[in-house]
Amino acid sequence: MTSETTARGGFEFDTDTGVRPAGGGGFTATVADRWQAIGGTANGGYLLGVTVRALCRVSPLPDPLVVSAFFLRAGVAGPARIGTELVRAGRRLATVQGGLRQDGREVLRAVATFTDFDAARGPTVLRNAPPALPVPEVCVDPVAGMGLPEGSVAHRVEYRVPEVTGWWRGVPSGEPSAEFWMRFRDGRDADLPGLTMLVDAAAPAVMELGAAGSLTVELTVHLRARPAPGWLACRVSTRHVIDGYHEEDFEVWDSTGILVAQARQLALLAG
Amino acid sequence: MTSETTARGGFEFDTDTGVRPAGGGGFTATVADRWQAIGGTANGGYLLGVTVRALCRVSPLPDPLVVSAFFLRAGVAGPARIGTELVRAGRRLATVQGGLRQDGREVLRAVATFTDFDAARGPTVLRNAPPALPVPEVCVDPVAGMGLPEGSVAHRVEYRVPEVTGWWRGVPSGEPSAEFWMRFRDGRDADLPGLTMLVDAAAPAVMELGAAGSLTVELTVHLRARPAPGWLACRVSTRHVIDGYHEEDFEVWDSTGILVAQARQLALLAG
Repeated sequence: MTSETTARGGFEFDTDTGVRPAGGGGFTATVADRWQAIGGTANGGYLLGVTVRALCRVSPLPDPLVVSAFFLRAGVAGPARIGTELVRAGRRLATVQGGLRQDGREVLRAVATFTDFDAARGPTVLRNAPPALPVPEVCVDPVAGMGLPEGSVAHRVEYRVPEVTGWWRGVPSGEPSAEFWMRFRDGRDADLPGLTMLVDAAAPAVMELGAAGSLTVELTVHLRARPAPGWLACRVSTRHVIDGYHEEDFEVWDSTGILVAQARQLALLAG
Repeated sequence: MTSETTARGGFEFDTDTGVRPAGGGGFTATVADRWQAIGGTANGGYLLGVTVRALCRVSPLPDPLVVSAFFLRAGVAGPARIGTELVRAGRRLATVQGGLRQDGREVLRAVATFTDFDAARGPTVLRNAPPALPVPEVCVDPVAGMGLPEGSVAHRVEYRVPEVTGWWRGVPSGEPSAEFWMRFRDGRDADLPGLTMLVDAAAPAVMELGAAGSLTVELTVHLRARPAPGWLACRVSTRHVIDGYHEEDFEVWDSTGILVAQARQLALLAG
């Protein structure tokens, strides 16, 4: 079993993150027009998903363990090229690098270390628990009826919240944190490349501070286990906004209560 | 004012992280033998400090804002070369990359985005506070009398804890977290490159779980403000150990109570 999904016919994420070898360790891809952030540029997590799909092809080990991505320019719908480099291949860990370019200019640079979770050996100690959310079936879809454009990432990803409060109702709570369910809207289950997208697919926690948005400078994702099928319980929070710069912490727990991803980004308040 | 320190005669960190231009964006350096982790290899934070000194020379903006480093191999005392690349130079942000090599093999790869904190504009909102520690003068030095080798990083960095407990006394507490003071032992005040070293210079939180040590795979440091002179209040914790892989979160607050660095690493239990 590998983390790279090649044969899931028809799911939006798989279609729209497909990469084709172009020689010399490079790949071509097409940035789709249906994973857009507010403003019409491509969602950063989606661009990272495309890049990670290429990195999965280059890594001799199957599972992305830690991925760091620097967002250099806005990505837009259209052709892209991804250059890759196998930095180091060890027995237990392998490190690869990729740069996604459009019109000759680099949009995103990512470095990732891969492992094989099947071979992981060591103790497990947890000092945290998944969000205590009501089951998704009694939660509500916060974007229903918002009239978001068809190209919005919010039509590719589905959210459930216990109730629609705070900035969702136009009244920021002042508390930059949230817990909610998330999954791909078309029924595709998350895998590790999918998680690298999903950790950047929800509304920024700073919306609860009245921010107009948040521009990601760098995003680090720790992948901790292959997720089980089903809804993902998520927790997002920002604790330190200093002169507009802020971190955002993001946890993803799978439907069996296992932490599957922990992400942190450094971002800049927009607007 | 820039973050790169070139004229601080005699301080150990400045001497031992000095880099010399070698053409083509490359630098030479000498990995010193007095910043060693347990086992005699070079402390990872120190190797990052050397690399960041080179990146400071390449960046058109003065202040490292976010640095992600992948640790590929153990570094040892002796010569090193650092290759650098200016990835993108914008008005507000600049991204650079560096690879530190010894004997032709890459030891550490780092990507960093720089900014100019003097030009930072935006709101400040904090949902956290510095550790509530007794003043350093009434705390104790946990490594005093331990007989650590002269080359140990613990002779370059000074620590103060409220009391010597837990694994320091040979009885791991089971709680992988700690709060303590830290500074360079020779009196050098921390700056931003110094902070990229210090976030990896303390005992891993997992020592309180009985671990023999922790090997860093990747370390991301957010630099949030230039630190004021004096002792630094630090908070370290690990919340998720899964099959030996774990994160470590590290906060550094300066003597005026400002968060100056927030780091997270993905690491693997050793031993």
